[in-house]
Amino acid sequence: MNAHEISVFAPATIANLSCGFDILGLALEGIGDTMRLELTNSFSGVQIGTVTGMDLPKTPEKNVAGVAAIALLAASNYTGGVIIDIDKRIKPGSGIGSSAASAAGAVWGLNALLGHPFSTTELIGFAMEGEALASGAAHADNVAPALLGGIALVRSTRPLDVVRVHTPESLHACVLHPQIELKTSDARKILKTQIPLHLGIRQWGNVGGLITGFFTEDYGLIGRSLEDCIVEPIRSLLIPGFDMLREAALQAGALGFGISGSGPSVYALTRGSEIAERVREALIKTYTQLGIPFEIHVSGISPSGVRNHKQD
Amino acid sequence: MNAHEISVFAPATIANLSCGFDILGLALEGIGDTMRLELTNSFSGVQIGTVTGMDLPKTPEKNVAGVAAIALLAASNYTGGVIIDIDKRIKPGSGIGSSAASAAGAVWGLNALLGHPFSTTELIGFAMEGEALASGAAHADNVAPALLGGIALVRSTRPLDVVRVHTPESLHACVLHPQIELKTSDARKILKTQIPLHLGIRQWGNVGGLITGFFTEDYGLIGRSLEDCIVEPIRSLLIPGFDMLREAALQAGALGFGISGSGPSVYALTRGSEIAERVREALIKTYTQLGIPFEIHVSGISPSGVRNHKQD
Repeated sequence: MNAHEISVFAPATIANLSCGFDILGLALEGIGDTMRLELTNSFSGVQIGTVTGMDLPKTPEKNVAGVAAIALLAASNYTGGVIIDIDKRIKPGSGIGSSAASAAGAVWGLNALLGHPFSTTELIGFAMEGEALASGAAHADNVAPALLGGIALVRSTRPLDVVRVHTPESLHACVLHPQIELKTSDARKILKTQIPLHLGIRQWGNVGGLITGFFTEDYGLIGRSLEDCIVEPIRSLLIPGFDMLREAALQAGALGFGISGSGPSVYALTRGSEIAERVREALIKTYTQLGIPFEIHVSGISPSGVRNHKQD
Repeated sequence: MNAHEISVFAPATIANLSCGFDILGLALEGIGDTMRLELTNSFSGVQIGTVTGMDLPKTPEKNVAGVAAIALLAASNYTGGVIIDIDKRIKPGSGIGSSAASAAGAVWGLNALLGHPFSTTELIGFAMEGEALASGAAHADNVAPALLGGIALVRSTRPLDVVRVHTPESLHACVLHPQIELKTSDARKILKTQIPLHLGIRQWGNVGGLITGFFTEDYGLIGRSLEDCIVEPIRSLLIPGFDMLREAALQAGALGFGISGSGPSVYALTRGSEIAERVREALIKTYTQLGIPFEIHVSGISPSGVRNHKQD
């Protein structure tokens, strides 16, 4: 490997975290895509090279990584080309930041190859353009943790204001992905444009509690705050068995349970990996009864976002 | 003084803190009421004794301190009486927690005299009954910081869930109280019962940013987060000169500016006492032009809530 190419690992992410709709997200450990980027002088702009793992569009303007890379190049002085190979492991449409990983991996890798001309906040901005292609709206709650690692707060999208929140050491996640299709753009359409003030107050009280719980490592407070009284009551109707899964997760000791991103994946947060494994067993048992195929992962919270991928 | 009587200092408080409508509050230093409570066997229940400073109802059931004390006694085993003397320094209706100070002082003092049978959370619950008398709604964002000190978060009112948030060391407040009447119950009536979802998201993003800023002592983030896009645009219309005051405070270096509680007091937060003094000068200059009488205070954030009052 030389300075003209780089291999990166781009983590899957859980966005929203229940009450933190559109503002909170966290990076998962061990689940993610690998990408290889190579600079070249033989053309200008972006080319999508080899794609493995899943089918993805090869036209850069229709590819999330391509669009994010194009946005970065447009703001840079670089006039050459870049080839992006993608080994896609996170299924598009799963609700654990598949498009965000592609976008974040592309801009992080390209920024490294160009000598780090851009700040992380700027990279988040470029990656959001890739996100917009995938979901129809430029949101940052997946790309921010994918780039920053840990737990990220998107205080504001316009102007972009993103900060890291302290990650309690023992925090673990269990993510179940029902193999059904649920488009982010559809999941957004069913939301109401007006909400009752008293539910808004309840939601921002929970956001305050969740962030306080993260900083003080108060797992009880984190659990009490993991409530979404606005979006989840509507969106959960699109996820078969949601209430049974929640019941099973909480019974098994989860701090809280909710929809990952805009679904269909669901997630539980736990204190420690042992309880996460117990939650995993309980969710498997519950969902096997329903006869819907699914994938399930247990993961710590990744302290780093996109990073160099060590190759064998 | 013996174990049958106690003198307490009950601090003024700023509730809401802009984006933290109904969920955040902080305790001020040096501004507050003093109260003297004395147990007696000569009668049962609560008697309001000497009232100085302001006129207050002497009937316990119509007096905020009386109602809070009655609520505590009803939950206790104590069958005797208590006399409460009040030296009222915080003007009722000022918006800096006048009724909360009375209620918090009464229950804190009474709890101490009875040998601390109740937790702070229980005391907040009793004090909220006093608050309900004053404002028509049992809210906790003044009584919580009045009892806990520092910055308090009310995650939920039912069930009551209150935690302390870290207070950045240099945080100061400047509070201006225009001498106009504005009832809490009226200030609540003009609020809309429905809010746009996108403004809700902006508000809870700001709550997340504000609490993160408090924990990380990131004053820039605190400043950017001190925005209320829901309540302030409506309520500020009831406060003459609000926009001019905000402009003056921010020009003088305030981190943020908003309505204290339900008004009419307004507050600015600053980094350090020097800037707080500069903000004070700027607000005085602005408000003197309007010809409305006012009071103004600069204060640190009190690390403790209601406490023993040292008598001369």
